[in-house]
Amino acid sequence: MNVPSHRRALLEALAERLGERGLLREPEAMARYVADWAGDRLGEPLAVARPATTAEVAETVRLCHEHGVAMSPQGGHSGLVAGALPAADGGELVISLERLDRVRDIDPVNFTMTVDAGCILESVKQAAAEHDCDFPLSLGAQGSCQIGGNIATNAGGLNVLRHGMMRQLVLGLEVVLPDGRVWDDLSALHKDNRGIDLKQLFLGSEGTLGIVTGAVLKLAPRPTQSRTALLGLPSVTAVVDLYGLARRDCSDLLNAFELIPRRCMELAMEATPDLGDPLDDAHPWYVLMEVAASGPLDLDAMLEHLLERGMEHGLVEDGALATSEAQAQRLWQFRESMLEGQRRRGEHLRTDISVPISAIPAFVERAGEAVMAASPDCEIIAYGHVGDGNLHFNILPPPDMAEADKRDHLHALEERLFAVLDDVGGSLSAEHGIGRTKQAAYLARLSPLERELAEGIKALFDPEGLMNSGRILPPR
Amino acid sequence: MNVPSHRRALLEALAERLGERGLLREPEAMARYVADWAGDRLGEPLAVARPATTAEVAETVRLCHEHGVAMSPQGGHSGLVAGALPAADGGELVISLERLDRVRDIDPVNFTMTVDAGCILESVKQAAAEHDCDFPLSLGAQGSCQIGGNIATNAGGLNVLRHGMMRQLVLGLEVVLPDGRVWDDLSALHKDNRGIDLKQLFLGSEGTLGIVTGAVLKLAPRPTQSRTALLGLPSVTAVVDLYGLARRDCSDLLNAFELIPRRCMELAMEATPDLGDPLDDAHPWYVLMEVAASGPLDLDAMLEHLLERGMEHGLVEDGALATSEAQAQRLWQFRESMLEGQRRRGEHLRTDISVPISAIPAFVERAGEAVMAASPDCEIIAYGHVGDGNLHFNILPPPDMAEADKRDHLHALEERLFAVLDDVGGSLSAEHGIGRTKQAAYLARLSPLERELAEGIKALFDPEGLMNSGRILPPR
Repeated sequence: MNVPSHRRALLEALAERLGERGLLREPEAMARYVADWAGDRLGEPLAVARPATTAEVAETVRLCHEHGVAMSPQGGHSGLVAGALPAADGGELVISLERLDRVRDIDPVNFTMTVDAGCILESVKQAAAEHDCDFPLSLGAQGSCQIGGNIATNAGGLNVLRHGMMRQLVLGLEVVLPDGRVWDDLSALHKDNRGIDLKQLFLGSEGTLGIVTGAVLKLAPRPTQSRTALLGLPSVTAVVDLYGLARRDCSDLLNAFELIPRRCMELAMEATPDLGDPLDDAHPWYVLMEVAASGPLDLDAMLEHLLERGMEHGLVEDGALATSEAQAQRLWQFRESMLEGQRRRGEHLRTDISVPISAIPAFVERAGEAVMAASPDCEIIAYGHVGDGNLHFNILPPPDMAEADKRDHLHALEERLFAVLDDVGGSLSAEHGIGRTKQAAYLARLSPLERELAEGIKALFDPEGLMNSGRILPPR
Repeated sequence: MNVPSHRRALLEALAERLGERGLLREPEAMARYVADWAGDRLGEPLAVARPATTAEVAETVRLCHEHGVAMSPQGGHSGLVAGALPAADGGELVISLERLDRVRDIDPVNFTMTVDAGCILESVKQAAAEHDCDFPLSLGAQGSCQIGGNIATNAGGLNVLRHGMMRQLVLGLEVVLPDGRVWDDLSALHKDNRGIDLKQLFLGSEGTLGIVTGAVLKLAPRPTQSRTALLGLPSVTAVVDLYGLARRDCSDLLNAFELIPRRCMELAMEATPDLGDPLDDAHPWYVLMEVAASGPLDLDAMLEHLLERGMEHGLVEDGALATSEAQAQRLWQFRESMLEGQRRRGEHLRTDISVPISAIPAFVERAGEAVMAASPDCEIIAYGHVGDGNLHFNILPPPDMAEADKRDHLHALEERLFAVLDDVGGSLSAEHGIGRTKQAAYLARLSPLERELAEGIKALFDPEGLMNSGRILPPR
């Protein structure tokens, strides 16, 4: 590779500062830094920097800034929108946070912990559990995703309903700004009203304003008991009505309230045949719900009361209440197996949209009609987190379609889906962010004023446009 | 008053656009717009604009921007840091939101409501209750404070422990920017990850970046039962330890967990003699706690279990559990009467600081020593919200001190208090904001980097420095 002189000078300076473990330049060594969970793959990075401390991150960024070299900060490679992949032109330095993996401090009395940004989410959860606390962020990728990436993308996951997104779980941040200066705001205060809350800008800005190197996280009491139920319901409207009843009857001890169509149960049983049909009869829609408590409450009585009321109101047709941990795991197995069943069907359209909860029934119906009108042989798989209004409205292409045609076909269907979404005030990215993959659809809907403000913020923090630029907003 | 020509031109234009009800210029009519709850009073406003719609707010702001006249947006006059009072030089136009007082929409299925910024908090709570929902922000000033002011100051109050500050309760905003353009982000989505979350900047920036005119608020189920208990404890350490136990045993159904020293109980009994001593013996410290639920849980059993465990661990010496609404009100009466008792003692230092919960015991001890060393005859009244680490560490001056000396004396003690606070990583404003009153102490602690970023944000939104300038940051 013919490396221009300013980049060569940077690499020499970095090699000296970071040492052998801290800078990777061989293509084989760099291979795992150019792909993410979605399988997206762009170009080759200029090199991969692996600083081990905040000071080394700061020095790396300072040198990039000095030499005018663009940066691509990287966490656990579990992104789905190509936001953390180096650019195709080979000009970006990947800065991996993986060596910043220390739990710095746990304060169970304050219900907080302070961690390096490169800590794996699962290890953070384990460390909290050792102190009888819970870090409630729960994601499919928790065994590999990093806290810094969770912060940069304002991650959500299964327990948003009860504990909120990452934004609600962060009390303080340490950030290396695009010029290499360190902004230390590692506050462990639960309540603080001193001026503009700058840390909010870094949450969800996908690394475009700076690199998070540390965070103070909010903990909850560790749950000591939980109950899982699978219910069969006649309609999406019944699901949404039951949600309102459940929040009330369960006094907001709901951890999860998942909407699952019959088709997904079938996909799950296809993928894992020994699961068997969970209820005596088939139902058009299912709810998989979990409640949890850290104290000695009677959760069985609470759920039985909810089921009775749900049946009285004609919302619930049938239900199974897990009476053991093994039974609960079997119910959750349906949700995992349905994802596996979906994967086995090959290329399909994945979305992570959101709508107001009250709009879920109309949206599912209208979006379904719009998609089926354009492509009568495709198949819709719409499931999601009711309490967040977050739906995975996914589409399997017609089974007989040629592989080469699928991508364009699905893209056209996505446009139809998004048009209905716009109509109900929904979001085309409730969870995964914008990155590069969703940039065009995002920009098409961004008002000139909002774009001006977002670009102004970016220019304020990163006037040279070197920090993860081209993600969310186009490069200037 | 000799009004310069650019201001006269503005007033003429405003009179034409807003009509007689919309523009006040007589001193008597303007009197109630120049004082706030703390009794702070600065100068006279240029005039008071009372726009009735978002479009009229936008037009008012646009005209001010065009004529280069400074603006002082105003809510319900319940501020405590002189942040919403017009400047002393008579050059600021007050823009009161009081006529924007419509509840625009309630969507109980989505657990949201959309309101004008001038809605009184109490009326918002009532409107939510009519739909079997709860808007959980609860403040002493809720009968007069407005939602827009709650948003601008990121208000907290009694239930922060369970429901968070205003930041956690806002899903969408409508804001008139300092040049009069309207930014419409009235989204009712519970989960949304499209780019930088600009609305976060307006929460807590005290009207310095724009005027909030509308908001989408998050609702909770309406509680159907609650229980109140008053407990006697031997030490602040026991209070903090009991808090950890209570969060676990009560499965986070805690609404309030208030720390009260014996001295405050005495002040309460002085102010309301027929209250009587609530427990058989006096205790050095008390906890007033409330749990609430929207479903049929056995809260009595839950609290009794907590009390037993607290006694087993030597944390709780004695306790009274209210068994009726009247008894619960009587227990809460202690908290109200102690504030009244404090007020009767005349001028005193009020603070609204916060520290990590784990630092509360050491802070109360060290801050007490520092203050008493400097002023052995003053009296410390330290109470607060344990779950937020938010303490009102207040100081009554020596009883024999001349009135004229009190202010300087208390200011000197505040400096000593803040020095201990700095040492434990605390905040000098957990609740009331910076405004003008706390600006000097705030700026003295602001790092040059943080100041640069905050000033950059201000300059981006308000390059002419016309919007509530001089609050939080000094005027440029």
